Amino acid sequence: MTDLLDGEPPSAYQDLLGYRLSRWEDGLAELELVVDARHRNRAGVVHGGVFMSLLDTVSGFCLTFCPLPGRVRRAMTLSLSTSFLGQAQDGTLLAVGRMRGGGRKIVAAAAEIRHRETGALLATSEGMFKYRPGCDDPDGVPL
Amino acid sequence: MTDLLDGEPPSAYQDLLGYRLSRWEDGLAELELVVDARHRNRAGVVHGGVFMSLLDTVSGFCLTFCPLPGRVRRAMTLSLSTSFLGQAQDGTLLAVGRMRGGGRKIVAAAAEIRHRETGALLATSEGMFKYRPGCDDPDGVPL
Amino acid sequence: MTDLLDGEPPSAYQDLLGYRLSRWEDGLAELELVVDARHRNRAGVVHGGVFMSLLDTVSGFCLTFCPLPGRVRRAMTLSLSTSFLGQAQDGTLLAVGRMRGGGRKIVAAAAEIRHRETGALLATSEGMFKYRPGCDDPDGVPL
Amino acid sequence: MTDLLDGEPPSAYQDLLGYRLSRWEDGLAELELVVDARHRNRAGVVHGGVFMSLLDTVSGFCLTFCPLPGRVRRAMTLSLSTSFLGQAQDGTLLAVGRMRGGGRKIVAAAAEIRHRETGALLATSEGMFKYRPGCDDPDGVPL
Repeated sequence: MTDLLDGEPPSAYQDLLGYRLSRWEDGLAELELVVDARHRNRAGVVHGGVFMSLLDTVSGFCLTFCPLPGRVRRAMTLSLSTSFLGQAQDGTLLAVGRMRGGGRKIVAAAAEIRHRETGALLATSEGMFKYRPGCDDPDGVPL
Repeated sequence: MTDLLDGEPPSAYQDLLGYRLSRWEDGLAELELVVDARHRNRAGVVHGGVFMSLLDTVSGFCLTFCPLPGRVRRAMTLSLSTSFLGQAQDGTLLAVGRMRGGGRKIVAAAAEIRHRETGALLATSEGMFKYRPGCDDPDGVPL
Repeated sequence: MTDLLDGEPPSAYQDLLGYRLSRWEDGLAELELVVDARHRNRAGVVHGGVFMSLLDTVSGFCLTFCPLPGRVRRAMTLSLSTSFLGQAQDGTLLAVGRMRGGGRKIVAAAAEIRHRETGALLATSEGMFKYRPGCDDPDGVPL
Repeated sequence: MTDLLDGEPPSAYQDLLGYRLSRWEDGLAELELVVDARHRNRAGVVHGGVFMSLLDTVSGFCLTFCPLPGRVRRAMTLSLSTSFLGQAQDGTLLAVGRMRGGGRKIVAAAAEIRHRETGALLATSEGMFKYRPGCDDPDGVPL
């Protein structure tokens, strides 16, 4: 199972949660997470923190696509609002993030998580993000 | 280092992230997390998902204190809005959640995270939560 | 210019702001507002409160369509998160609300506002809503 | 009844809703609104849009205090998340906004609305705001 983050290693936090970047283009990103025991809360369902981690991460990715080898774009989250619409105990979570607009340096992204097997909508989010210096340029900065 | 969750084992997700419930009373809860490598994102700072996981968790705890042995209260998150005010690379994160009001079954909690060593305010949240059946009763339900 | 709220007078607040319900069906609603002087803030652009009023209202409408004469459905807002993506000084604002899912009594809606003349996306929102007693039934309650 | 906005006329939207700036200092602001018919929705209680307008406005004010005659500070709202905790039919609404932190140009504010007569907490908010050019300076810009 490959990850699209070629040229840059996954973050430690990505390894911890175990998600995978399965689609990445300008203004759109997609993450997959296969649910296992570590993701569950005391009630036996996926912890809200897992949902929010995926929503935040996929939102950030959809804003920072950079096709140039050896260059990256970075953004930081200013705010993220999440609505919880359903629960999951197992299966695969599919998170999709889409750029929504904004200005040059401050931009918005919407994201959602569906349960791949059932198609159920589990969580949605809206967030505001700020590009790090130089990263509002589609060509990014050196890695 | 003990945890206040006596009588109930920590969730797998708690073990994964490594936070500790350090204070728990009616309407108030406090979590501590010692930052290490697993919590960091590609930029080398604590991932926003860690902040949101702590905010969500500490908010849920502050609404579900139950002093009776063998009984618990549970709530599910309906929505959580997070503002990111600062970043952390290491040290200890201190998350505090406070009940804010609402109705009988649907209640609100505010939470914040500070960097213990510097006192810097790193993130704040507001959330709406719904008690699971029977759990709006302060005496909770059997574990 | 007619309004779709047949059988029920507009609220005083609707009169105050001057919006119009231009489309209303199950899970979808649309409001229009022609900007004039009363809607502007100290900086000469439409006040954020106008945007949020439209987003909240159109979200509520999309959840409460009831085709039966003499019957209505009501929902109350639990939380609403708004992102501001652009500004408007004049022209017509078009707000669209869509039901997103949730449970039986607590449901989520997403909404957005565009500037009709330019198509620019001005604001988006996510909200959680709770049906008033009897109103989760599509047949609603007597007016 | 005077308003603290000396040297600058209230906005048209302020006149429309009828609120009054009753306290204004660095990092803190307070608005008052006497509820009347125009503020009510179809259910006979104050429209959520009124709450959000007050929360947004008082948040903006708490970030833009400028004691120098003939000079002002301006900020624009990037995002605002509101939780609705109670309802009001009449009486006086008291909205308080407090600066919470952030960076130099992007800052956060928390706000809440209480019913003056009963003290009940009606709504709370968190928002992110961006200073307009020159307005992160406490001395502001010429009016």
